[in-house]
Amino acid sequence: MGNEQGITPRAEDFSAWYNDVIMRAELADHSPVRGCMVIRPHGYAIWELMQGALDDRFKQTGHKNAYFPLFIPQSFLAKEAEHVEGFAPQTAVVTQGGGKELEEPLVVRPTSETIIYAMLAKWIQSYRDLPVLLNQWANIVRWEMRTRLFLRTTEFLWQEGHTAHATQQEAEEETQLILRLYRSFMEEWMALPVLTGVKTESEKFAGAVRTYACEGLMQDNKSLQTGTSHYLGQNFAKAFDTQYQTQNGELEYVWSTSWGVSTRLVGGLIMAHSDDVGLVCPPRLAPVQVVIVPIWKSDAERDTVLAVARGMLEQLREAGLRVELDDREGMKPGAKYYEWEGRGVPVRLEVGPRDVKREQAMLARRTGGKTPVPGSGLRRAGEAGRARWPQELLTAALARREENSLRGVTKEQLVELMNGRGGFAYGGYCGDEACEEAIKQETKATIRVLPDEEFRTDPGPSECVWCGKKAVTEAVWARAY
Amino acid sequence: MGNEQGITPRAEDFSAWYNDVIMRAELADHSPVRGCMVIRPHGYAIWELMQGALDDRFKQTGHKNAYFPLFIPQSFLAKEAEHVEGFAPQTAVVTQGGGKELEEPLVVRPTSETIIYAMLAKWIQSYRDLPVLLNQWANIVRWEMRTRLFLRTTEFLWQEGHTAHATQQEAEEETQLILRLYRSFMEEWMALPVLTGVKTESEKFAGAVRTYACEGLMQDNKSLQTGTSHYLGQNFAKAFDTQYQTQNGELEYVWSTSWGVSTRLVGGLIMAHSDDVGLVCPPRLAPVQVVIVPIWKSDAERDTVLAVARGMLEQLREAGLRVELDDREGMKPGAKYYEWEGRGVPVRLEVGPRDVKREQAMLARRTGGKTPVPGSGLRRAGEAGRARWPQELLTAALARREENSLRGVTKEQLVELMNGRGGFAYGGYCGDEACEEAIKQETKATIRVLPDEEFRTDPGPSECVWCGKKAVTEAVWARAY
Repeated sequence: MGNEQGITPRAEDFSAWYNDVIMRAELADHSPVRGCMVIRPHGYAIWELMQGALDDRFKQTGHKNAYFPLFIPQSFLAKEAEHVEGFAPQTAVVTQGGGKELEEPLVVRPTSETIIYAMLAKWIQSYRDLPVLLNQWANIVRWEMRTRLFLRTTEFLWQEGHTAHATQQEAEEETQLILRLYRSFMEEWMALPVLTGVKTESEKFAGAVRTYACEGLMQDNKSLQTGTSHYLGQNFAKAFDTQYQTQNGELEYVWSTSWGVSTRLVGGLIMAHSDDVGLVCPPRLAPVQVVIVPIWKSDAERDTVLAVARGMLEQLREAGLRVELDDREGMKPGAKYYEWEGRGVPVRLEVGPRDVKREQAMLARRTGGKTPVPGSGLRRAGEAGRARWPQELLTAALARREENSLRGVTKEQLVELMNGRGGFAYGGYCGDEACEEAIKQETKATIRVLPDEEFRTDPGPSECVWCGKKAVTEAVWARAY
Repeated sequence: MGNEQGITPRAEDFSAWYNDVIMRAELADHSPVRGCMVIRPHGYAIWELMQGALDDRFKQTGHKNAYFPLFIPQSFLAKEAEHVEGFAPQTAVVTQGGGKELEEPLVVRPTSETIIYAMLAKWIQSYRDLPVLLNQWANIVRWEMRTRLFLRTTEFLWQEGHTAHATQQEAEEETQLILRLYRSFMEEWMALPVLTGVKTESEKFAGAVRTYACEGLMQDNKSLQTGTSHYLGQNFAKAFDTQYQTQNGELEYVWSTSWGVSTRLVGGLIMAHSDDVGLVCPPRLAPVQVVIVPIWKSDAERDTVLAVARGMLEQLREAGLRVELDDREGMKPGAKYYEWEGRGVPVRLEVGPRDVKREQAMLARRTGGKTPVPGSGLRRAGEAGRARWPQELLTAALARREENSLRGVTKEQLVELMNGRGGFAYGGYCGDEACEEAIKQETKATIRVLPDEEFRTDPGPSECVWCGKKAVTEAVWARAY
């Protein structure tokens, strides 16, 4: 299932490059079903590694997985006014089941708040039943007009957390806890630095009181929303009459949150680090971390080299690394290098007859550099590499973001930047949606977030970048996926 | 979220008992969506443990996970004649998307052969691309008229393996490999002994050449089909033109298999072991393996007891066990015992002031028996328990199956058994579908499998149990879920 076509350079056409990287690495493919993709084994393995890391963090913070129905009665969606307005136009609707027309059409879930709150109303009686900390790994359907592999597809995979609390404060703390959890996962596992903050009204989740988000800057200087954490207040509790009895015997609505990340993260991973040769994958998320390529000419060489290569395979697997030995016959080493580089394997070990004699292997890193390593020190080298590499990619991504962030922008700079090289533009915002909308019309840029304290400029801007009136907050603009 | 209602005894009403066990253990709940259930955290945790164990085995045998679309164009389903005949009446159909009528309705996948073969046709070029060994964890929809939690629901979760091979022999070996893999998982993890064999034509998968199955005997003496492995021959390859170039340069259709187990396994687990107190769960699949219940009256006692209990918690977690400390206030120990017993926790440790003085804990097993264990020996006791318990449940289930299996049945015995106490009835079968159908009409029993060699009676039956003509094979009858 090789794929021999070349990769369009990033500088030439970023969007074509993105697709080429996915095809070359066999991460995903277009399906015959409109807007739906197939996640191929190499892409799915990255998603599984992401799932594992996130799931551990969710469980460590007390969340439990559950599973709610794929179908939601149309009337449920309508119970929360903003929610139905936001999602109804995007739904896929089942109207026939078992050969008959359904009395009430079923919506394929675009998100699960409504069905979950209908159940919570049944399960939650008193303060003793709170908090409820749930998570669900599931597929989601949102009818999309223009789709892109991983970034925007009609069906996608995600996790959706849903929590209910006795107090407003607890719910707000949960929203923040998850935002931090997402951020540390993205930095430590994806080597992707993300900006966090709150969304403006026009960009928040339909039905939320406030939406917090993580935003990562891609190599084309567009921003990707990589995760969201919503504080829902009592909106869904009221719509579904989810009440609990307080310690004083009174009835109160629960306070709730929801939050999610999706297979879109795989798209973010690709666009953050990859190059014109193919995928670059942080080692923690690499399905294959090391590939061993044996080199031989004669049959005698083959036997000797393969025996040594198998020993290395064993040694590295014992060190806890995900290793493959590429012993395919009738394929030149160069062709193998090309294939594994395209697939983003962080380290390649080449072993030929001369290396066997010198008791070494040549270690080639995906991001550049080739050095001999002694065969006996492989395990140690592997372990040291594991510790070092994620930091290098993160440092590079952080430097790229800093180079492409401009603080205290003027109106002219904002327009020039957003219509030009892109990046993050920090400036003052008066809070008037008219300014937000005007900037969007002029530049296609949106407010990605009102940044969290640690990202804010000090001192903050005093005037709105657009109308010049008093700024009520700082905002970060970017063109976005 | 406690549930205080009693459990109907098995002997009185098995079906009501089954539902009561699920409700008491909070494994699942009915949803407001017709035929769909909610899998609650305790039930989902069992499914996750099953998934983990199966996924390891799939990967160890070279299979890779992938993900294919939820929606299948109606025309795809129609390409394999038997397949569409079997599945079309059961489908849920999406006719609207994004507010518009669709040109071609989309079926919500009842199984994924058709969409997968459409992709394989694109990916497979030559013998070098084979075998393709895929697995998918996904949700499935089959419109069901009468549903039961876990056993038969409109939506369920499953894994579906799909493999393509260069030769018939390889595909047949794969079918057998998976059948053995399923059986060993069911025995070692679920403590559920299963009968394996091939299905008759009338019971096979729509589109398969042959279907192999695992069948487990439940406590009501009905059989549950717990897993199937299908040899598909070239049926789907021909329907989707999935060809490969052989080493000689000729074009040949691939040979394929598919296989699956579902959340139905959780239902099987419940019906195999549980009792009138609630769930009995084999320790390997128990989300909580040990619960520690501290007992105190005064505040001073509380502090001492809790300190010791926390030490035990630590010790047992270090031993790799899943342990909870139930330190809820204002709840009597007896009420806690009742709750954890209902949830199927294999071991309870009670620690009161007297136990603290004696440096011990009382160990109560879910399946009976109470003994003091020294606090210092807890870790060792835990490890020993882990090794021993699954075997005990399996031995009991095996003995129950043997007691309820009758070999070499006559026509009269078959009718009496199947209309009476149930169980497995082994007898001769002439191979004529008319006999199979007549027995079904008379007794509601079906041929579960033509048993694999190791399960066959020696010497085998010579006459058909129904018509008395020459038997071509031995068959096992049972009433089934």
